[in-house]
Amino acid sequence: MDTPIGLNGQLLIGAASQRGASPEVKGIDPATGAELEPAYGAARPEDIERACALAHAAFDAYRGTTLEVRAKFLETIADNILAIGDALVVRAMQESGLPRGRIEGERGRTMNQLKLFAEVVREGSWLEARIDPAMPDRKPLPRSDLRMRNVPVGPVVVFGASNFPLAFSVAGGDTASALAAGCPVIVKAHHAHPGTSELVGRAVQAAVKTCGLPEGVFSLLYGPGNSLGTALVSDPRVKAVGFTGSRGGGTALMRTANARPEPIPVYAEMSSINPVLVLPHALASRGEAIAKAFIGSLTLGAGQFCTNPGLLLGAEGKDLDAFVGKVAENLPACASQTMLTPGIHKAYSGGVEKLAKIAGVNTVARGQAPAGPNAGQAAFFSTSAKTFLADHALRDEVFGSSSLLVRCPDVNTMRDILESLEGQLTITLQMDPEDMAYAKALLPVLERKAGRLLVNGFPTGVEVAHAMVHGGPFPSTADGRSTSVGSLAIYRFLRPVCYQDFPAELLPEALRDGSSVPTRVNGKRGG
Amino acid sequence: MDTPIGLNGQLLIGAASQRGASPEVKGIDPATGAELEPAYGAARPEDIERACALAHAAFDAYRGTTLEVRAKFLETIADNILAIGDALVVRAMQESGLPRGRIEGERGRTMNQLKLFAEVVREGSWLEARIDPAMPDRKPLPRSDLRMRNVPVGPVVVFGASNFPLAFSVAGGDTASALAAGCPVIVKAHHAHPGTSELVGRAVQAAVKTCGLPEGVFSLLYGPGNSLGTALVSDPRVKAVGFTGSRGGGTALMRTANARPEPIPVYAEMSSINPVLVLPHALASRGEAIAKAFIGSLTLGAGQFCTNPGLLLGAEGKDLDAFVGKVAENLPACASQTMLTPGIHKAYSGGVEKLAKIAGVNTVARGQAPAGPNAGQAAFFSTSAKTFLADHALRDEVFGSSSLLVRCPDVNTMRDILESLEGQLTITLQMDPEDMAYAKALLPVLERKAGRLLVNGFPTGVEVAHAMVHGGPFPSTADGRSTSVGSLAIYRFLRPVCYQDFPAELLPEALRDGSSVPTRVNGKRGG
Repeated sequence: MDTPIGLNGQLLIGAASQRGASPEVKGIDPATGAELEPAYGAARPEDIERACALAHAAFDAYRGTTLEVRAKFLETIADNILAIGDALVVRAMQESGLPRGRIEGERGRTMNQLKLFAEVVREGSWLEARIDPAMPDRKPLPRSDLRMRNVPVGPVVVFGASNFPLAFSVAGGDTASALAAGCPVIVKAHHAHPGTSELVGRAVQAAVKTCGLPEGVFSLLYGPGNSLGTALVSDPRVKAVGFTGSRGGGTALMRTANARPEPIPVYAEMSSINPVLVLPHALASRGEAIAKAFIGSLTLGAGQFCTNPGLLLGAEGKDLDAFVGKVAENLPACASQTMLTPGIHKAYSGGVEKLAKIAGVNTVARGQAPAGPNAGQAAFFSTSAKTFLADHALRDEVFGSSSLLVRCPDVNTMRDILESLEGQLTITLQMDPEDMAYAKALLPVLERKAGRLLVNGFPTGVEVAHAMVHGGPFPSTADGRSTSVGSLAIYRFLRPVCYQDFPAELLPEALRDGSSVPTRVNGKRGG
Repeated sequence: MDTPIGLNGQLLIGAASQRGASPEVKGIDPATGAELEPAYGAARPEDIERACALAHAAFDAYRGTTLEVRAKFLETIADNILAIGDALVVRAMQESGLPRGRIEGERGRTMNQLKLFAEVVREGSWLEARIDPAMPDRKPLPRSDLRMRNVPVGPVVVFGASNFPLAFSVAGGDTASALAAGCPVIVKAHHAHPGTSELVGRAVQAAVKTCGLPEGVFSLLYGPGNSLGTALVSDPRVKAVGFTGSRGGGTALMRTANARPEPIPVYAEMSSINPVLVLPHALASRGEAIAKAFIGSLTLGAGQFCTNPGLLLGAEGKDLDAFVGKVAENLPACASQTMLTPGIHKAYSGGVEKLAKIAGVNTVARGQAPAGPNAGQAAFFSTSAKTFLADHALRDEVFGSSSLLVRCPDVNTMRDILESLEGQLTITLQMDPEDMAYAKALLPVLERKAGRLLVNGFPTGVEVAHAMVHGGPFPSTADGRSTSVGSLAIYRFLRPVCYQDFPAELLPEALRDGSSVPTRVNGKRGG
């Protein structure tokens, strides 16, 4: 196969690009198992050093740019991504096994994220500007003039995610929010889509140049997850980390970050089984429709979403039997789907096999048999509440189209099961108006256990918006005080600084009298 | 000595009070070394268990109270503290060695903090309410109704601080902000002021009862820092930690918190030497006045502030010589002051002795000789930039009235020294208008290194306000994204939750249409 235009198999370090070290690795088309040109070498220690040094050197100048310059930079990245054209779509399809519609949609989402953050940057609320004017005549002591704003934390390392080759990778949500905050970004490309990463990386690199920004604002490195990731997260010039991936990978980064002389925040989005509670009236009145919608959510994108519904809770009885019957009737028709990588496919198949063998777990239905080398076959299991509560292995995420129904004696048991779970990204209630009393009783538990709560929807499909929360208590994310999707994500990369009795000339522009940035004066929201 | 009214030497666990286990310990009057009645026993494992269980049980009900109920609770605590009357002032003076004026001022500050947070709670901005209304006709996919608010993280453990027996102890800033956020609080009393802690603890306990809140909203435990602190921070029901104290203590808590199955945030305020840069024109034009003001800040409260100016930077020359001469002339007249505890006095004396013996460090001046068993004698040292840059021991905080001047060849060297430092709570510029170019060149470094920057003031004296930041990069605090003083401190104990397509009846009141809470709609700030 010919190398597509624009792909050189190079690391991007600031404005430069160069080959990495041996051994080189290639992307793999999971639909066929074939290797994809070109090969990518790994970042050497001196490459890592240079990327970190450039990021550090760029930091003060980059964060000192006007809001308009930074917004324009984000928009330029979006434009440059679109300008790559179909080559990007084709390469991302090849490397991920995802269909054209999904990749085109994801490209749109990636661009929209960048544009959303451009808007957010311009609006300026994220600076959290606050002014408490001096009170020179206050007794017993005068008050100084106090002004506060958020500043960016410093260079951020972003790990590309396997399951969103565009929207959570090189120029995805983590990168967009970090750049919006004023942080230079070093991306560690995910080995599953090196070519897609290079194409997007060159789009970002070009935007840095066009916008006249210091070259260290962006670098893209390739290399083994463990060694490259550890080296980047350990570097003293790196001040925060964005990661989407496995629990093992995320917690390893947390340990590395905490062991530094200066610990730094890790925003790792790791593991969630996204419980869906089907409440009794809803189950009785529309169990069939819920079963069909559930299958749709379960099998979407081969189940390769952090928000895949991996756990269903329902109260025993004929309505639940009918629901199960409906899933058993419809799931076998679902075609297998190529998964993102051979490794993910292997982990999925292994996870499903392991679940099927656990005593007390019944295999209710499987999807169609695999039609390709890395095709995932959907799986739906059921078990009793007693078995579930007794076996912690049943709470582990199986990444892919696998879900486990827990047959509960009653709604109180659903509550007990929720209480027994670790933190989740989402929890969903399927409910009718007659289920309101149940829902109200459950709500405090839901709020403690998850970052996003849904009624009568399914958790797959994460809107990029201002009120979105894609984050939840550990281990769904490393830091449940944050979100990695939506405009609130910018706050992950900010810290407050107070300026006391500063002369106007020395104050940052946002904090001067008459600044156009939204400001609280004496705690009151102003113009 | 008779036991003061209201002091029983008891642990407060929810609504109950009871004696702790042997060995019991007593407070010590540092001015005399005498023990103070009564004795306090330590929390047993079952006491810790009960306090945590009660806090967990109280959490949903407490966070479900209206903003008005919670604000009233904070105000009631403030009223109850004042109602203790002079017995509180007298006891705090005895236990801390601090003078009446300081303790009365601190009581006022403690009450003002509680009242400030009552206002903050009522105003409601901290909920960060956001609504992105449904767009049912959007193509290609409709958008759900998304609503977001902050919820409290869960029960918080607060460690009383030795140096603020009221304002950063049982009902101090950490407790006030956690209660404001909706978190039950378990306080570990500082052994330096057990009686003060009990008096204030009973004021909080009474407020819980008066306000009809669940008893688990507040408990007060006594016991050895290591074992009790570790047990509390390890408890799975505890979700965040507030601490002010030593770097060793704070980092130990961070390790404990990170080693939990569910890691939790630790907000530890630990160590800072608060550099003061005297820029050349200011040094020439008003070196004498700066020297006098510096001595005032250095010796305030026996130097026992996190913001004590422990490092001075000035450019070599006759102006710096004159400045040093002025300090050498005035410091010897400064009376010694009783320090908070025998342990703190010992650590201070040891730190000063160690500094004096380091080659290249000159003892410029000392204050008056100690007038009591635990009286601290002020100390002012000088060294060269070369010595300072070569010896990391010179960067360690010496808690008390000790400061080190670094004679720099020029302003660029001041910058190099700042770059070599770890994170700080504050950095101060003493500058004249003619120093503006220097100040502008230094500002980016200041912003990276500290949470509060001052011009022509001194860092002691931390205003409780909306724009205050008392927090900085590690190790000045564990988490430089936060402040422990001022209204922004409430954000430490919050996390966002998104409600997707919720029926109005199930939504929290703050997120319903027409709610009076400040709300962003589609990212725009509304009414």
